[in-house]
Amino acid sequence: MAEQAPTEKTARQLDRLSEALDSGVKYRVSRLVSGLSAAEVGDLLESLPLPKRLAVWDLVNPEMDGDVLVDVNDEVRASLIRDMDPEELVAAVGDLDLDDLADILDDLPDAVIATVLSSMDRQDRERLDRVLSYPEDSAGGLMDPDVLTIRPDVSLDVVLRYLRVRGELPEVFDILFVVDRAGRLLGGLKLADLLTRDPSTPVAEHMDRDMRTIPVELSASQVATEFEHHDLISAPVIDADRMLLGTITIDDVVDVIREEAEHSVLTMAGLDEEGDMFAPVLQSARRRWLWLGVNLVTALMAAGALFLFEPTLEQIVATAVLFPVVMSMGGIAGTQTLTLMVRGVATGQISERNAPALLRKELAVGLMNGLVFSLVVGGIAVAWYGQLALGIVIAIAILINLLAGALAGALIPSFLRRMSIDPALAGGVVLTTVTDVIGILAFVGLATFVLLGH
Amino acid sequence: MAEQAPTEKTARQLDRLSEALDSGVKYRVSRLVSGLSAAEVGDLLESLPLPKRLAVWDLVNPEMDGDVLVDVNDEVRASLIRDMDPEELVAAVGDLDLDDLADILDDLPDAVIATVLSSMDRQDRERLDRVLSYPEDSAGGLMDPDVLTIRPDVSLDVVLRYLRVRGELPEVFDILFVVDRAGRLLGGLKLADLLTRDPSTPVAEHMDRDMRTIPVELSASQVATEFEHHDLISAPVIDADRMLLGTITIDDVVDVIREEAEHSVLTMAGLDEEGDMFAPVLQSARRRWLWLGVNLVTALMAAGALFLFEPTLEQIVATAVLFPVVMSMGGIAGTQTLTLMVRGVATGQISERNAPALLRKELAVGLMNGLVFSLVVGGIAVAWYGQLALGIVIAIAILINLLAGALAGALIPSFLRRMSIDPALAGGVVLTTVTDVIGILAFVGLATFVLLGH
Repeated sequence: MAEQAPTEKTARQLDRLSEALDSGVKYRVSRLVSGLSAAEVGDLLESLPLPKRLAVWDLVNPEMDGDVLVDVNDEVRASLIRDMDPEELVAAVGDLDLDDLADILDDLPDAVIATVLSSMDRQDRERLDRVLSYPEDSAGGLMDPDVLTIRPDVSLDVVLRYLRVRGELPEVFDILFVVDRAGRLLGGLKLADLLTRDPSTPVAEHMDRDMRTIPVELSASQVATEFEHHDLISAPVIDADRMLLGTITIDDVVDVIREEAEHSVLTMAGLDEEGDMFAPVLQSARRRWLWLGVNLVTALMAAGALFLFEPTLEQIVATAVLFPVVMSMGGIAGTQTLTLMVRGVATGQISERNAPALLRKELAVGLMNGLVFSLVVGGIAVAWYGQLALGIVIAIAILINLLAGALAGALIPSFLRRMSIDPALAGGVVLTTVTDVIGILAFVGLATFVLLGH
Repeated sequence: MAEQAPTEKTARQLDRLSEALDSGVKYRVSRLVSGLSAAEVGDLLESLPLPKRLAVWDLVNPEMDGDVLVDVNDEVRASLIRDMDPEELVAAVGDLDLDDLADILDDLPDAVIATVLSSMDRQDRERLDRVLSYPEDSAGGLMDPDVLTIRPDVSLDVVLRYLRVRGELPEVFDILFVVDRAGRLLGGLKLADLLTRDPSTPVAEHMDRDMRTIPVELSASQVATEFEHHDLISAPVIDADRMLLGTITIDDVVDVIREEAEHSVLTMAGLDEEGDMFAPVLQSARRRWLWLGVNLVTALMAAGALFLFEPTLEQIVATAVLFPVVMSMGGIAGTQTLTLMVRGVATGQISERNAPALLRKELAVGLMNGLVFSLVVGGIAVAWYGQLALGIVIAIAILINLLAGALAGALIPSFLRRMSIDPALAGGVVLTTVTDVIGILAFVGLATFVLLGH
C-alpha cells in the first residue's frame, strides 16, 4: 500500500496553511486551523519550521491545546511548551484524561505540575499516581484509570437508568465492567446484551466471565497483539489479584501500532521518532553522529581486510575494481534473510522451535542464489577482463558470500538479543560488516592464493 | 518499542504446538488449537513448514476455517486451500462477512465460487458485487456493505425496541446511521445519545449531521489516517451522492495499519509481505532474483567508476583500501535523509511547501557532519599512511559525498514519485548508487588529480 499517493489530505492542509501564513493574514490561518482535529493540528505543527510553528500555535483554540500537546512528538512538544505561560499550560493540561496527562507530565515545568496536582481531588491524584507507577510503554502506562463499573446483582434496567442519569458515557464504550465490592473484576456486560436482553434480569446472568483481560505489566506491543488477535475495542486492565485498575481502548492501541511502525523504519537508519524534523542544525547533526560513527568503524574493518591484501590489489587491479560487487551482493542477500528473521521474531512467528527449519531453508536459498549469481558475475568478469581464472575466483567468492549472508542474517538476531541489543537497530550494521569482510577475504584472498600463487 | 522482548505469547504457543506435533499425540494438538482465536491460528499456520501446517489445519475447528483463511497471507492461504475439498471450502467461506469473502474470493476454485454465489440471496449477491467493484485497498474494498440503518422520524424508544427485537447487533457498534427513504446518509446517532436522551424524542433531534464520512474511493491508507486523526470506531462509506454504501470499523483499519507497517519494512529489502516463510526453496530464491539483480547493476556501476581509475588504484594502493569508507559514509548519511523524507511524505507532513526548508536544513546537517567526519577520516588516513596529501584528499571526498548524500536523499523521493516508482522500494538502491559513484569519483578522481598530478 505504500505505493499509493501520500496522505494527500495532510499535505494539502499543510500547503493551504503555509500559503495563509505567507499571506500574513492571521484570520485566514485561524479559520483553517479551527476546522482541524487535535491530531491534525499536531501533525501540521510537526511539519512547520519553528517560527511558523509558533505563529500557528498561538492561533490554535486554547481548548484544544492539551490534546495537541499529547499528540505531538517529544521535541516538538518541548518547543511548544517553551512558548507558553504557566497559566496557559495549567489551563491546557487541566482537563486532560489522566492517562494522557501521565504521558506528558514529565515534560511540564515543575511549577505547572504542582499547580495541576493541587487542583485535583484525592481520587484523581491516586489514579494518576497509579498510572505513573507503570512504564509508559506497558498496559499500566496506557490505561485510563477512570472506569465505569457496575455490580453483578443489579438488573439491566437499573443499569440503563443509571446510564441515563449519568448522561455522559465514555467515548469508546462497548463493554461495561462488572466488579465485586472490593473492586475485583467479575466479568463484562456487552452493550449488545444490555440492549437486547430482558431488562428485568440481573447483570450476573448475562455477563461474560471469560472476557479477555490485560495484565497490568504487559508490554504495549503485546497489548496491541492482543487487541489485533481478538478484535478488541476495549479491555480491562487487572493486577495479579484481578483488581480492575483501568481500561485500554482501541484508539490508544492504534497509536501504539503506528508508533511501533514508525520506530522500526526509523531505527534501521539510526533515527529516533521523537525528533523534531526542524530541530536546529547542530542538534540534528549531533543526533546522527553515533550512527555515522558506528558505520565508520565497520567501514574501517573492511578497509583493514583490504589492507592485508594491498599487494594483490596492486598486482591484480581487477580485484580492486570488482571486490565491491562481491561485498554488496552478500550484503543484499543477507539483508533479505535478516529482515525476514527480525520481522518473524517481532511477531512471535519465529521461535527456537521453527528457527532450525528456517535456517536450513535460508541456507538452501543462499546456495541456489549463490550458484545463479556466481555464474552471472563470473561471466561478467570473464567478459570484462578476459581471464577465466578471475571469473572462477569471483564466482566462488560470490557463492561463499551469499551463503555467509544467509547464515549471518539468520543467526545475528538471536545473537544480538542475547546481548540485549535491538536487532532492528544493529542487525543491518553487524550483517554488512560480516558480508563486507567475508566478501573481501573470499574474493581478494582467493585471488592472492589462486592467481598470485601465494 | 521494538527493543522489547518479542511477542512472547505467540512464540510460546508456537513452541507448545510444535512440541505437541512432535509428540504425535493428535489430541494434545487439538486441545491447544481449540483455545486460540482465528487470528492466532492464522499466525501459527504461517509459522509452520508445510507438512506440519497441514497437520494442524486438519485439526482446526471447521467453524473457524473461514476466518483463518481470511487472516493468513496469500501464499499460505493457497497452500491451505489446496488441502481442502470443495465441500469443506464451501462450508468454510459460506458464513463469512461479505467484505471478508470479497477479500479471498479470487483465491477460491471456480466451482466453489459458483456454489457459494448460487447459495446467496439476491441482496447479498448485489452487495458482494458492490464490494468487488472497488479496489481491495480502497474504502470500497474495506467496507462491510451490511449496515444497520434507522430513519430520522422515529423516536429513540422505537429504535431501542427495534434493536431489542432484532436481538443481535453488529460486533463493532458505536453509531447508528440515519438514512432517508432513498438510502442517502443524513447523519449518525451516537449510541451514547440513544442511551441517555429522552426516549420519546425523534432521532432527527439528536443525530450528528456533521459526522465524519469516508468517500468510497478513498485509499485504505488514507482511511487509516482519517480513523487515527479523528479517533473513529466506525464510519459510514458514501458515494458522491451521499448514498450509504457500507461501514468501515476500526478492527479492519488496525489490520490496514499493521499491513502497511509490514509492507514498508519488507519493501526496503525487496521482499513481499504476502510470501510464505516456508515456501519451496526454488520459489523463495526466484522471488529474490529481481532485487539481487537490481543491486548487481548498481554494484557494476560502481565497478565501472573504479575501472576508469585503474591506474590510480594500482599506483596509490591506499585509494583501493580506503574508497569503501568514502562510499559507505555517504550512503549512511544519505539514507538518514532519505528515511526522513520518505516517512514525512507518507504521513503527508512533507509537501512542496516545506520541502525547500527541509532541503536547506538537511544540506546544513550534511555540511556540518561532512566537516566533522572529514576531519575524523582524514586524520585516520594520515595516521595510517603518513601522507598529509592523502588525508586532505579523503577529507574533501567525505565532505563532498555527505553533501551529495543529503541532496540525493532529499530529492530522490519526489523524483521517483514523478516516475510512479515507490520511493520506499527503490529509494535506497538509487541513493547508494549515487553515493557509491560520487564517493569513488570524488576520492579516487581527486587522488588522480592531486596525488598523481593528471
